This record gives sequence, structure tokens and C-alpha cells, in this order.
Amino acid sequence: MKQSTAILLMHCPDQPGIIAMVTEFINVNGGNIIYLDQHVDVDQGVFFMRVEWELEQFIIPQDKIEDYFHTLYATKYQMYFRLYFKEYKPRMAIFVSKMSHCIYDLLARYTAGEWHVEIPLIISNHPDLENVGIRFGIPFHVFPVTKENKSEQEAAELALLKENRIDFLVLARYMQVITEDVINSYPNRIINIHHSFLPAFMGAKPYHAAFERGVKLIGATSHYVTTDLDAGPIIEQDIVRISHKDNVEALIGKGRDLEKIVLSRAVEKHIQRKVLTYKNKTVVFN
Amino acid sequence: MKQSTAILLMHCPDQPGIIAMVTEFINVNGGNIIYLDQHVDVDQGVFFMRVEWELEQFIIPQDKIEDYFHTLYATKYQMYFRLYFKEYKPRMAIFVSKMSHCIYDLLARYTAGEWHVEIPLIISNHPDLENVGIRFGIPFHVFPVTKENKSEQEAAELALLKENRIDFLVLARYMQVITEDVINSYPNRIINIHHSFLPAFMGAKPYHAAFERGVKLIGATSHYVTTDLDAGPIIEQDIVRISHKDNVEALIGKGRDLEKIVLSRAVEKHIQRKVLTYKNKTVVFN
Amino acid sequence: MKQSTAILLMHCPDQPGIIAMVTEFINVNGGNIIYLDQHVDVDQGVFFMRVEWELEQFIIPQDKIEDYFHTLYATKYQMYFRLYFKEYKPRMAIFVSKMSHCIYDLLARYTAGEWHVEIPLIISNHPDLENVGIRFGIPFHVFPVTKENKSEQEAAELALLKENRIDFLVLARYMQVITEDVINSYPNRIINIHHSFLPAFMGAKPYHAAFERGVKLIGATSHYVTTDLDAGPIIEQDIVRISHKDNVEALIGKGRDLEKIVLSRAVEKHIQRKVLTYKNKTVVFN
Amino acid sequence: MKQSTAILLMHCPDQPGIIAMVTEFINVNGGNIIYLDQHVDVDQGVFFMRVEWELEQFIIPQDKIEDYFHTLYATKYQMYFRLYFKEYKPRMAIFVSKMSHCIYDLLARYTAGEWHVEIPLIISNHPDLENVGIRFGIPFHVFPVTKENKSEQEAAELALLKENRIDFLVLARYMQVITEDVINSYPNRIINIHHSFLPAFMGAKPYHAAFERGVKLIGATSHYVTTDLDAGPIIEQDIVRISHKDNVEALIGKGRDLEKIVLSRAVEKHIQRKVLTYKNKTVVFN
Repeated sequence: MKQSTAILLMHCPDQPGIIAMVTEFINVNGGNIIYLDQHVDVDQGVFFMRVEWELEQFIIPQDKIEDYFHTLYATKYQMYFRLYFKEYKPRMAIFVSKMSHCIYDLLARYTAGEWHVEIPLIISNHPDLENVGIRFGIPFHVFPVTKENKSEQEAAELALLKENRIDFLVLARYMQVITEDVINSYPNRIINIHHSFLPAFMGAKPYHAAFERGVKLIGATSHYVTTDLDAGPIIEQDIVRISHKDNVEALIGKGRDLEKIVLSRAVEKHIQRKVLTYKNKTVVFN
Repeated sequence: MKQSTAILLMHCPDQPGIIAMVTEFINVNGGNIIYLDQHVDVDQGVFFMRVEWELEQFIIPQDKIEDYFHTLYATKYQMYFRLYFKEYKPRMAIFVSKMSHCIYDLLARYTAGEWHVEIPLIISNHPDLENVGIRFGIPFHVFPVTKENKSEQEAAELALLKENRIDFLVLARYMQVITEDVINSYPNRIINIHHSFLPAFMGAKPYHAAFERGVKLIGATSHYVTTDLDAGPIIEQDIVRISHKDNVEALIGKGRDLEKIVLSRAVEKHIQRKVLTYKNKTVVFN
Repeated sequence: MKQSTAILLMHCPDQPGIIAMVTEFINVNGGNIIYLDQHVDVDQGVFFMRVEWELEQFIIPQDKIEDYFHTLYATKYQMYFRLYFKEYKPRMAIFVSKMSHCIYDLLARYTAGEWHVEIPLIISNHPDLENVGIRFGIPFHVFPVTKENKSEQEAAELALLKENRIDFLVLARYMQVITEDVINSYPNRIINIHHSFLPAFMGAKPYHAAFERGVKLIGATSHYVTTDLDAGPIIEQDIVRISHKDNVEALIGKGRDLEKIVLSRAVEKHIQRKVLTYKNKTVVFN
Repeated sequence: MKQSTAILLMHCPDQPGIIAMVTEFINVNGGNIIYLDQHVDVDQGVFFMRVEWELEQFIIPQDKIEDYFHTLYATKYQMYFRLYFKEYKPRMAIFVSKMSHCIYDLLARYTAGEWHVEIPLIISNHPDLENVGIRFGIPFHVFPVTKENKSEQEAAELALLKENRIDFLVLARYMQVITEDVINSYPNRIINIHHSFLPAFMGAKPYHAAFERGVKLIGATSHYVTTDLDAGPIIEQDIVRISHKDNVEALIGKGRDLEKIVLSRAVEKHIQRKVLTYKNKTVVFN
């Protein structure tokens, strides 16, 4: 991680020669490819690729790569692409309510240096977890939300996020529906954890619903937030086996472990720039 | 398995002393308990138990145990119970359509002697898999079903099942909705395999729906058939991880392995008399 | 949890009537059984049981139950038993070295009140994680261990543990072999996490060994520490799928999530008094 | 599958430009790439790739591709490569002893047309499963093996395999050690299933050893056979959770499901030409 790399995430209509063309562009200009993964959605006819290369010998100046790539290839091949540099630490805000298991898991990783990320602030609609912010030395902002003040409070939150140059939001069991203004400000950059294997048990109280239905597995799903509740692109899911011996409380307990791990896996993939979204689905590279 | 055992499955309103009372009844009459598992649903206030004992020294004649238990305890404690004898081989009918993976899995176990069961017949709405019946030497009956002849055909099927003293049915990817007459003749004794982690993706084409939604797991669910489509008591579920690289065909392929294993696990538990149903849920003992 | 319950863990040579006898003892003396699970190891001829009952109406005084049970049954049936009371919070010490993922997971649960336990102190052979102790307000004691001072330092540790009335130890990636004195002071009460699916990859550097061998799964194992290194009774294990794309660093990263969850599950079972050990194996009740 | 494709599996010392070079070779000669996956083992400095392209418009005649590729690139870049054509059905021999679960699973898939493979014969050291061959119409050859006749019998088996132009062998719970002559005739082309999560419990009776050790998971491992017993390159592994309630018989029962699925997954990957071996490890592409 000492020397910077460039990461290109792209998709475009599938056609022969794209890999050869992009890899040659990198090679002939002195870039050493250290990662390449690609995927073709045959049904949709879409080509996806993630390629990462070392910049040390790359002859195009870092701040011009995007421009060059756009001019030379993107328009021609109708590519949608994003370019990232490894040296930049993305800035993440955590939203939380009253449950602490997810935020502790995120902050334990952060504080141990597992992730290449900055967490400049925590936002909550309740003061309950203020102590967590204090323990980890991260500013904790409380925005109590009521029906009456919701749009106002969200505007204040948005201002705070912008002021802190936040790149993406993580809803760590934030028990409050995010409205369109925030969602549209962070398209495919708000990661939520829902405590069921979506699309089963959307909405409130999924563990109660799971218990009621008598399922033998419970799940958790991390997804990007869209204006459709619990229906955004899924990044990661997992399940744990339960039995008739588990009552609702036991499901909630077992679910906590799932939720935090599934959320953290999704956040990690996002930080690593390994998630591409397309038509409400994700391509998640290894 | 050489000497017979009795298996008691029961549930009743929970109250102190039931275990002591039932186990004493068995002990004082010379039965040696070789298995006991019990469960209390605290919310519903229901007590469930499965107990199995050796009959060799049991002083109550085998054909009178049910009567004695009924008289002495069942009425008094409002018990619902079923009594089985290990020596009896339950008789199972397989229903199948065009896909062979589940039926092969069932018959491979059957023919290897893994299960204490008889399979006197296979019923299908298509002739495609007749060869499977021939290979394993099991009569294969074709009942082509159309809208017009459905009730007639089901009546003929029911007659055949009765004639063969069938105890329970296994729908091994039988692509035909079973109607009320059959369901009511075999309450909680028709085991279906649905190719999704229910309650997600009920109804037709779950793999297509799963692909469309972009889930990261696919599942399979075996359940008892009730008149509510895909909504009966769940016996067993499992999932397998998928990725963006898997198209619908790949999901179907990965799903086949799940379906057959999940169905066979449920059938095994049923044969072993380890499944109790209560209010559209199951208690599945180990 | 407001009113106390008694928890009896026991094993004895198997014979008819034990369940009936123990449950009757509880019932006739006014105890209401709220949990019973039992297991017979047919090969060894050993009967295991965990039973929990409410003490509110129990006529035997709490401090005499052990004595009564011992006199009336334990000797007669050669029972080994332990009696616990729910109201008592077991006292746990965490041992840690330089890696923080396990201890954060333990303390996040502790601080959220998930567990009925006290954690009066943390012991480490390095000062690196002192900050974790400070954050959660738990005394952090550093005992640097060298070949020369090992027995001395362990004696000091033991003294500290005793002074704090510690009931059991959790080695949260404590990278130091515990010697016999400590092990014998806490028989089956030291829980370790080993970063492999034991018995594969015992000893040091299991992720390197796993990578070298080219396995497709990595695992973690929590077990009670015995004087046989990595060979004590296993409490819990789990695995995660890996692929050729994962280098040693990736294995270590994926392993961290496993380790902490597997360790915490084992600690939880221990706190709940649901683990019985017998001949280097465990019975872990649900 | 109607029109043929070429599949290139290769590895070589890693260096910049290989992907670009190979994909350009295919593109400029009229091949349409429908699959590309690659992997760099950074520690070893080895580049691996699997690429598949449609031959319809490919201007190099099918029987000359290997030669061209060899001349133009392989020597220059020290590539080890294999070229396959989709239209060719690999020919597989099944070796079996007395247990039928794996062979039924293989043949059920074969007979359902799931796999692009021919199975011209079954070899066994016992006559017990002859009936399986008869049922599926596949010649079943019995070669009873004793200490005395082993090398003779293996020579006869080899002759039979050659006569039938067998490409690879599947040991479907074949309880007989294969000797060097056979192994060397089919390097990395003999797939075995071992009933443990290797490297744990190598050798005989792994379920007994697993029970003895008190593990909480049992596993199965499919691997290529080398002259080191149970130590060849691992293709696929999986596990299933067990508990203290499972005796050795139960482990064997649960293990059967694992074994057959894990073996079939490995066979499928092999048939699809998605497995590359390198220094006793595998790269298994999706």
C-alpha cells in the first residue's frame, strides 16, 4: 500500500476486444496490472470489469487519467466508469440508533487498522450510544427525529456530511427511514443492514415474522439504500441455522452476530472498490 | 433395530410434572427409554415430547399401549399424541414430473437400505421418468392431468394410494398443485420441496425471481403441504452461496443439489418419527 | 431473570429411571422445571442432563440443595454434578496479546449487557492493547513473560485471579502457552480460540499451513485448555470458504471474523452453564 | 453448446501484458471470448488463466490452434498450457467398492444429461454394486484385488482403461489404495473423495477418529490422487455441523451426503475444464 495504485471500475455494452484494449492501454503506458476481474452478463449484454494497476511507472499523470480514459475509450464504447486511487482514504459516516453490536464491529476494525477508511463522525437519532463515540474518540452527533422536524433534521445532517466531505454512509441498525433527499445525495453509497434474508421479511420486525412463519434459517442482508424500502441492490447475505428451540429473543441474539458480520463484509467490499451496481443488482468482485 | 421399540410423539398444554409422569409410566412398566427429547414453547404454553423405549420387557401388550396411555393420561392432560412402532415400515409414495434429481436421491437411499421405509409406487403426471421406475423395480403410474380431468385423476390416484396402504407422500419436484381432497386425506403427511428459501419467492419460477432480485444466496425448503400454496409447516431449509457470475441456468444447477438434500433430510426425519407439527410450525427433534 | 433459578449439570452411568427420579425430586419439592435437556452416550454408557428450575416455590433452601442432592442421589447413582444459581454472575478474566478483534467482540457484548457475566480484569503479556481496557473501563494488567520469569509471572497472575475471585479465563488470541499450574487451577474453565479447524493445523501459524496445503475452507476452534496443546475438549467450531484467490493475508482477515464469533459462542455457552465435559469431549446443550 | 468453443487453460511466470497478448491473439483471429478468468499467485509469481472462445469465425483451423499457440507464445513465455474443445466429451471411468451413495449421485447426473461426459465403464474390486451398472446400462468390471494379484490386476485395469480411451478416473469411495503405475498414467486426472476435512483425519476410519476427537464439524474433501496418500491437490471441501448427539453411525450417515455432493462438485469442475493444478494446489475457476 506504500505506492499508489489506480482502480478502474467500469461497465459497458459487451463487445469483443474490450479487455485487450483496456489492458493494452495500461500496459503500453507503463502501468503494471496487479488485479483484473471481469464479468459478462450475457442476458443483459453488459461487460463489467475491475482492473487495478501500479502507478509508479505510469506515464499519464494521475490527475489526467480520468480525462484520457474518457476521451480515448469511454465515449466510444459507451462505458460507465469510475476511477479511484488507493492512496485516498474514503470517508465514511456511521448512522446508529440504540443497538450497539454493528457499530462496535465497525469501530473495532477501524481502530485496529483493518480498513483503509476514515470515520470522521457518527450520527444518531438517539443519545443512547454517545458513549461509543466517546470511547473511540469520534464525534457523535444527535439529531432527534420527529414527524414534524424530519426534513429539517435531515437537511442539517446533509450539511454536516458535506462539511465533513463524507463519501458514503453506513446505517448500522439505524431504525429510521432515510428520505429521498439523503438517498439522492448518496446514490449507491448508503449501505444498510436488514435483519432478514431479503426479499423475505421486508419491513419491521423480521425476527418476529420469521419466528411466526417457523423458518429453519434466519438471515441478514446488506444492501445499498434506494427509495424502495429494503429493495435496493444486495451486496452480501448470510444465514444461520435455527431450530424450534429458539424463541424470538434467541433469534434476535443469533441475528446480531449475522448482522454485524454481513454489514462489515459489505462495507469492506465497498471500501475496496469491489462493488459495481447495475440495474438494482451488484457485481461484487473477489 | 432387531427388537421393536415404541415411539411416542405428543404435545399438550405445558404444566409441571409431565416428563416425570410419562417417564415413570414407561419405567414402572418395564420399558427402557433409549431416547427422550422435549421442548416447551413458552409463548404458546405447549409442551412437546418424543420418547422411545424398548418393548422387550414392557408389560403392556403392544396393541394395548395406545389405549392405556389414552385412558390414563391423554384425556386428563389434553394430550395430542401418536404412537409408532419401529418394526413397522411406513409406506411412502413418490410423486414426480420431469426432473429426476430428487427421485434418484430418494431411491438411491432406499435401495441402499438407508431408510426404514417401503416405496410401493411412483405416481407421475408425465411418462418421462418411467425408466427410473423400471430401473429400481418400482411400479410407475402415469396420471396425465388436465384442467378437465384433474378431480377424476386425483380420485384415481387416491384410490391407488389407499389400495397400497400408503402412509405419506413425497412430492419430488411434482409440478402440479395438489388439491384439497388429497391434502385432507394426508394431513401433515405430504412432503414437498420448494426451490427457494421460503417465504421468499413463493410460487412459480423462484430461481428466475432470485436472479432478478440479485440475491447472494439461493435456498430450498421442504414443508408439509397444506391448502395454502407454499405456506405449510417448514421441516427443513438450506441455502447455497451464489454470485453475480451465476446466471439462471447456474442457479437451477446449484439448486438441484440443495433440493434433493433438503428433501431427503425432511423425508428422513419424517420416517424416523421426529417431526411434530403444531399451528403451522414444526418441532424437529434431533 | 428477575427471580433466581437453579441449574443442575450432571452425568452418571446410564440406567433406567434417572430422568423420572430427578424431575420428580424437583417437582415434589415445588420446583417448576423450565428447561431440561439430556443425552445418552450409548457407547460409553453415560447419561448427561441439564435441568433448570425456578426456585420461588422450592421448599429446599438454596444453600442446602447441593447437600440434599448429594445425599439423596449423587452417591447412590455415582453422579458427577454441579449446581449453579442464575442470580450469580460468573467472573471472567480475559487474556490477550496484540490482536484486538476477539477482545473487542467480547467487550462489545459485555458492555451491551448481552451476557450475565462480570469482567473484572484483563491480563496481557504486552502493553499494546492497554487502550482497550481504558476504553471499556476495565483494569488492564501487563505481565511481560520471558523464559526466565514465566513461572514467577504466572504465579503473580494466579494470585491476581484469585484475589478477584475469577471463575474462568478466556484466552482471546493470547499468544503464550499457559503452563500446568494455571491449567490445573482452572480445569475445564480456560477457553481458548485456535485459528484452525482442529485437529488440522495444530500449533503455530495455522493460516500459513492452510495456505500451503491449499485447503478450500479455513476454520476456528474454541476449546477448553488442557496440558495437551490444542488438544482439549472442543466447544465450538466453524469454517469459512476460501479460494485460490486468497493469500495468507486474506486468510488471516477472513479468519478474524471466524475466530471472534466462534470464541464468543463458546464463552456464551459456558456462561449459560450449557457445557459439560467428559473424557476430553463436550456435551453442549442448546 | 451447439457450436464448438476452445478452452485454454494456462499458467506461466507472471509478467505484464499476458492478458492483453492472449486476448488480442484470439480477437484478431476472429474468436469471440465468452469467458475469461485469471489469477496471479503473487507469492509464487505465477499467472493462471482460463479463456474460452467461440470457434465459428476463428480463422485458425481447430487442429492447428495448439501448434500456433505453442509456436507464437508458449515457448516465449514459458507457458504450460492445455487446449480443449467443448464438442469433445471427456471419457470418465468410475471406481467403486461397496458403498453406493457416490456412484448413484454421479450416475443420476450423468443419466439426466447434466454433464458433458461419457461414462463407458465402472471398475470395482467387489461384485456388490454390479446391479448399479446393470440399472444404468454401463459395463461393470470386477477386478478382485489381493496382495498377491494387485499389480497384475492393476495392469489389466490399465489396459481396459486405455482400450476405452478413458480420460480421467473417479474414485467413488473406492476402498483400495491405487498404486503408482495407475497414478502416473493419469496425473492430476484421478479424483478421489476422502471422508474428512483434510488434512485432519487422513487415512482409514476418519469418522471414528472425528467422533473420538469430539469435533463439532465433519467434512469431506475431493482431491487429485498423488502417490502421497490423501495429500494430493484439493479441489473441493465442505463440512456439516454435528453435535454430541451424533454417534459414529450418525456421522457416517451425515457424511454420505457431504461426500457425494463434494465429489460431484469436483467432477463437474474437472469436466468443465475449470481446474488448474500447480505445485500440489489447485486453481478452481468459477
